[in-house]
Amino acid sequence: MKRTVLSAAILLLSGMALQGAAQAASDEPIQPIKPPASINVGMVELGKKLYFDPRLSKSGIMSCNTCHNLSMGGTDNIPTSVGDHWQQGPINAPTVLNSSLNLAQFWDGRAADLKAQAGGPIANPGEMAFTHTLAVNVLQSIPGYVREFKMVFGKDKIDIDQVTLAIAEFEKTLVTPNSRFDQWLLGKKDALSKDELEGYALFKDSGCVACHNGEAVGGNSFQKMGIVEPYKGKMSDGRAAVTGKDEDRFNFKVPTLRNVEMTYPYFHDGAANTLTEAVDVMGRLQLGKKFTKDENAKVVAFLKTLTGDQPNFTMPILPPSSDATPRPTPFK
Amino acid sequence: MKRTVLSAAILLLSGMALQGAAQAASDEPIQPIKPPASINVGMVELGKKLYFDPRLSKSGIMSCNTCHNLSMGGTDNIPTSVGDHWQQGPINAPTVLNSSLNLAQFWDGRAADLKAQAGGPIANPGEMAFTHTLAVNVLQSIPGYVREFKMVFGKDKIDIDQVTLAIAEFEKTLVTPNSRFDQWLLGKKDALSKDELEGYALFKDSGCVACHNGEAVGGNSFQKMGIVEPYKGKMSDGRAAVTGKDEDRFNFKVPTLRNVEMTYPYFHDGAANTLTEAVDVMGRLQLGKKFTKDENAKVVAFLKTLTGDQPNFTMPILPPSSDATPRPTPFK
Repeated sequence: MKRTVLSAAILLLSGMALQGAAQAASDEPIQPIKPPASINVGMVELGKKLYFDPRLSKSGIMSCNTCHNLSMGGTDNIPTSVGDHWQQGPINAPTVLNSSLNLAQFWDGRAADLKAQAGGPIANPGEMAFTHTLAVNVLQSIPGYVREFKMVFGKDKIDIDQVTLAIAEFEKTLVTPNSRFDQWLLGKKDALSKDELEGYALFKDSGCVACHNGEAVGGNSFQKMGIVEPYKGKMSDGRAAVTGKDEDRFNFKVPTLRNVEMTYPYFHDGAANTLTEAVDVMGRLQLGKKFTKDENAKVVAFLKTLTGDQPNFTMPILPPSSDATPRPTPFK
Repeated sequence: MKRTVLSAAILLLSGMALQGAAQAASDEPIQPIKPPASINVGMVELGKKLYFDPRLSKSGIMSCNTCHNLSMGGTDNIPTSVGDHWQQGPINAPTVLNSSLNLAQFWDGRAADLKAQAGGPIANPGEMAFTHTLAVNVLQSIPGYVREFKMVFGKDKIDIDQVTLAIAEFEKTLVTPNSRFDQWLLGKKDALSKDELEGYALFKDSGCVACHNGEAVGGNSFQKMGIVEPYKGKMSDGRAAVTGKDEDRFNFKVPTLRNVEMTYPYFHDGAANTLTEAVDVMGRLQLGKKFTKDENAKVVAFLKTLTGDQPNFTMPILPPSSDATPRPTPFK
């Protein structure tokens, strides 16, 4: 009997210890990024070519990579993008890195997933200015693509769903694990400096983490821009454009802070050039908190630990057009 | 004595046999492309980043790779390029592939070498629309570049000569050996089909090879566009703009035919969309020869054997701007 009680007590204590360890990890409001799983490699290789192919634009010079440049944090690093005929875009191009972790795509969440997003810019008259039909016609005229689509999808005929599915599959691989912060989360306790850890403590204690949490440190909710004070920059309807509800005005998808050191300028209008400025504005407008210079620097130091492994692949070589391929019309 | 004569005869015969073998290879007017030698690897890695960096343009969205796209044969595959604020370029962007083999750079040869060329588009108001001073200021403000320039050039201060030297060093690596035609030249006698070999014979016998010869199958002389018949398309002064001599009017650098399947559209004005059309026009205007449909197809088949190994490298990740980096001004 005594022995049974003792065994039970030991079992219970072991269980508690294990649970305690598990809790220590899950206690943190940010989780490490996991490398992608369930990836279709053939579809990724096809999607990579399409992502870099400017023949999906009317002009023949704009590809997904033009505004979501994978050499530069998956963005174009300008306030708003340049579209066909040098049109000025209405909103800052969000990073494609880790975008598979977003609850929806675009600042206003109007696309449910990456596949739905991928078709948008191709047919947007202010962006790539093409049509889905014309884009498919171009691809169908290129023998190298016809073969590769057939290998991946098993069909002779290319359609826009295959195109956007392949681009989305490639984009799923664009996660950035192994940041110094994630190394710290995963147990490398010397991965962060004292200042960076103090910055993380401030990030949590001040309330930033209320919106910027989870695997992507954001991307998982819509929130109002200007909770405590109104935003003084350029405004757009935000989420209300999708829901039609007045209470969603000025609501935007919370951007991921992963690789934020590379995704300047900040906010929906790209008005903040530096992290120092962005942290200051966010503190005041969203939290009613004026960070001191020292606090601001520490939060920025923490944010810079969120830069993970960047995309690492061989630049794709695109299959050449054939005599039958419709030519781009950049100046019409 | 007899023995000496015999030895001498044997030596003579051996010498003739060796000379015969050497002649068989050197008899061909086209030589195989050799991989690059004497390459500074650190400089290449730096130059690769610069080649892909749109911060060398006023707008922040145009890099060398925009018009000389390494995914597409080192060209933009449109008749004339799109410059800053969507300006229309005056002439077709030549391929950067194998450009180290050219006797000079640009269609009119106004740049003596790759280094001299690299500075041109950055400061051309119709292309990247920046200045050398502003480009260097941007680079000097980026800590990742400052370190890498120092590693490569041993100096704290970046200057435009270092920038163009590094870009040129990267471009020297952009040769495309191992085409099927080169495999044939190097002894793989089944590398070409009967039609392709007949096309090569036509290419030689008709006189194309008079201008398109050497390692790059072109790029080593200036020739008049329209020798037998005048060219009906858009004309520019060509080489005369550099030399000031009237006899150089309509003279252009003969373009390389390496990878010509990928470098459409053709001619200085990009007016020929297909190889069939380009071969037809060249035959009539330069040689006074109207190729039959069958001959044309065979020459085109031969030309497609000139596609070599395309650039094969990991897409570069660019060092992020700092708070002090001047921001691009795409809409000013």
